[in-house]
Parts: sequence; structure tokens; C-alpha cells
Amino acid sequence: MKIVVVKNVLGHNARRAAALKRRFLQARCLAVNILGSPGAGKTSLLEKLIPVLKRRRLSVAVIEGDIATANDARRIEKAGAPAVQITTQGVCHLNAAMIDSALRRLGKLPDVLFIENVGNLVCPAAFELGEAERLVVLSVPEGDDKPAKYPEAFAGASAMVLNKLDLGAHCRFNRAKAILAARSVNPGLAVFETSCADCRGIPELAAWLTERRAAAFGGGRSR
Amino acid sequence: MKIVVVKNVLGHNARRAAALKRRFLQARCLAVNILGSPGAGKTSLLEKLIPVLKRRRLSVAVIEGDIATANDARRIEKAGAPAVQITTQGVCHLNAAMIDSALRRLGKLPDVLFIENVGNLVCPAAFELGEAERLVVLSVPEGDDKPAKYPEAFAGASAMVLNKLDLGAHCRFNRAKAILAARSVNPGLAVFETSCADCRGIPELAAWLTERRAAAFGGGRSR
Repeated sequence: MKIVVVKNVLGHNARRAAALKRRFLQARCLAVNILGSPGAGKTSLLEKLIPVLKRRRLSVAVIEGDIATANDARRIEKAGAPAVQITTQGVCHLNAAMIDSALRRLGKLPDVLFIENVGNLVCPAAFELGEAERLVVLSVPEGDDKPAKYPEAFAGASAMVLNKLDLGAHCRFNRAKAILAARSVNPGLAVFETSCADCRGIPELAAWLTERRAAAFGGGRSR
Repeated sequence: MKIVVVKNVLGHNARRAAALKRRFLQARCLAVNILGSPGAGKTSLLEKLIPVLKRRRLSVAVIEGDIATANDARRIEKAGAPAVQITTQGVCHLNAAMIDSALRRLGKLPDVLFIENVGNLVCPAAFELGEAERLVVLSVPEGDDKPAKYPEAFAGASAMVLNKLDLGAHCRFNRAKAILAARSVNPGLAVFETSCADCRGIPELAAWLTERRAAAFGGGRSR
């Protein structure tokens, strides 16, 4: 019984997500859904990526998903991009209807739209948001066993970002083990190694996003 | 529609959880439900607590909840306690029915039964498992803003464990801010500050669990 209901919910979400995808495509907007545990560093990565992408002459906006508080939207606006906060009031993931409603508040679509999902390595993986790319962020202190323990999040991503590399010296983290486990469920997964403390890996990740956008739409601006 | 279904699921779970609670009480077994993000250090804390509790002449067993793999049950058994692994196959939380089924595999109830929930700071908070105590584990690298952003997990806990204190020098973490936010939704919350690298705070947490068991059942052994 519960499974049937969940399937209906997912089917309904998939239809709305497909409509979002068409809208993003038409506007030449690269939508990027960002998944990760609470505290993996998703907002910090965006704070670092936004100025780099803007220097590459790409417009950026962010939809922030959180259970409670609008703290993250305020951080994003300080970093120089418009942000719309969705507070889910207890719901453990974003869905396509929430994105629809956030887009009405956002106005014109940017060249790159980041959607920072609720901090949760499980539930958001099941809900498409019309995104072209999905990043899963895994921070080094979480441990190298997480891709094996939470396979769905890694199976559905286009890139894995290993974050907080600056803490690597203080944590037992075997990067080869983490990458092997993630690629065993997703052989084509791109991997980036970043730190928001010393900014390593941020230019490479920004370059990859720029390339993905060019591959999807050519190099031009959004309409 | 979805809300009605979720309420039915929660009502059904609450009835099974109440039956578990009676069973734990009758057996003088202190059941402890452990919540936290992936990588907060829940399993590592148990590895450190088990020998300390055993030296206090308490029998200990663990139910391990994970989306995939039986890695954690193996770690617990190496640490000296029997463990039953529940692999939820994608489900984002443990429920009382899963605990029922794990107890059939466990056999005799111990003095202290730890239930390590799926790594997720959102969904497990809504599902009672018949526990007497609920610990929420927050690791320092996750950030001091998490109690404000995930209030339900902190509101329902009897104790918060601030873990990975050894990484404190390398992370911007304001412990007073984290404690204030957690106690603003839960004024009676006990707080422990621990590290599994240097074992600080582990004896205090073990002493608190022993006291909670004595307060519930007197000092005797489980039946």
C-alpha cells in the first residue's frame, strides 16, 4: 500500500520535473541539483563557485532547500547571487512542485541555476527536479565508506565532489576506496577534490560546469 | 492525501513502538536510539562505549540500521558486542516493525540495547522505536548551525553528543551557539562533548547511560 502511494508521488513528480527540464532547456539554463549530508559543505562550495562563474561571465542564481531557517539564502546573497529560500517545514527533500513555486519568485532564469537540496544523503536522490547535472558532495570527515552505504545518491549523480580536503590530514579517508565504491555503481562519474578553506579544486569544478553548459547549449548566454 | 497516509503510517508505528517499550521495560533493557547524519561518528562512538559499559558489568547489544552493507555490524562485533544488521534497501529510517524483526534474531535482551539509526538527520526523528533514550550525534565538521536547521532531530532527543572534538581546532565551530540553538527547542537536553580519536567524553557518556538505566530500573541486571 505504502509503495503504491510512493510510486504515485514519484510519477507525479517525474511529470513536473520533465516540464521543468523543457523550460530550463528552452532558456539555456544549466540546472544543477546538489545533494549531500548536513554539513558536507554544499553552501560553502556555492559561496566559492559563484564569484568564479561570474568572472567567466555566467549569470548564477540559487534555490536553497532547508527544513528550517533562511540562513543559507542570506549566505548566497552575500556571495553575490540572487537566492530563493524554500523552507520545507519538515519535508526531507525538494520536489519539482517546490522548484516551480521558487521559480515564480526568482524571475528570469540565469545561465547556471544551482538547487541546493535539503541536507540528506537518502531521500532527495529519488526526486528529479528537472536538472541537467546532479552533484553529490561528500566531505572527508564523513568517511570513505559512504558511497557503499548510500549507493542511490552516488548512482544518480553526474559528479562527486570530495570536499573538505584540508581536513584530510586529520581524518582516515582513503580517496581511492571512496572513488572505487562510487564508480562501482556509476562508472561514468566525474570526481572533483575540493576545499573551501584553501579553494583547491574550485576552478576545476567551475570549468567543468562551464563545459557542461557549453556542451548542452553552446557557449551563448541564457535567454 | 499524502499527509493522511503518512499519519496512518506513523500511527501504526506508534502502536508497535509502545509494545516494544513495554517489552524493554519488562526486561529491564535500556533501549537507546541513536540519530545523526551520515559520518557523524555513531558507529565509532559505539565502538568506544561498548568496552566501557562492559567494564561496568552491563551487557550490551546493537541493532545497526543502514541503507546498504553490513559493515557496521561487523565493526560492532569486533568491538565485543553482538550486533544485528538491518539493511533497509533504500528506506531512509528504521521503524518499529524492523526492530521487532531484529529482536527475533538477537535473542535475549541485554542491559543496554543501542539502535543505530540510518544516517539521516531528518526522517528517523518521526519514528519512535520504543526507546527510553534518544541520542542525537552532531560532529564538529558539520557546523554549529545544524540544530537550528534540523530542529526536529534535536527537539526529540534526551542528549546531544558533540563529536569529533579533536577536529575543533581545524573547524569554525561555536559550541555555545550549537548548544543554545538545541536547547531553544529542547531546554532539558543533556550535552556531551566527545572524540573517538582521543576518547574524551566517553567515560562521562557511559556514566550517564548507566545512571539513566539505574533511574529507570534500579541497578540490577536485565532478565
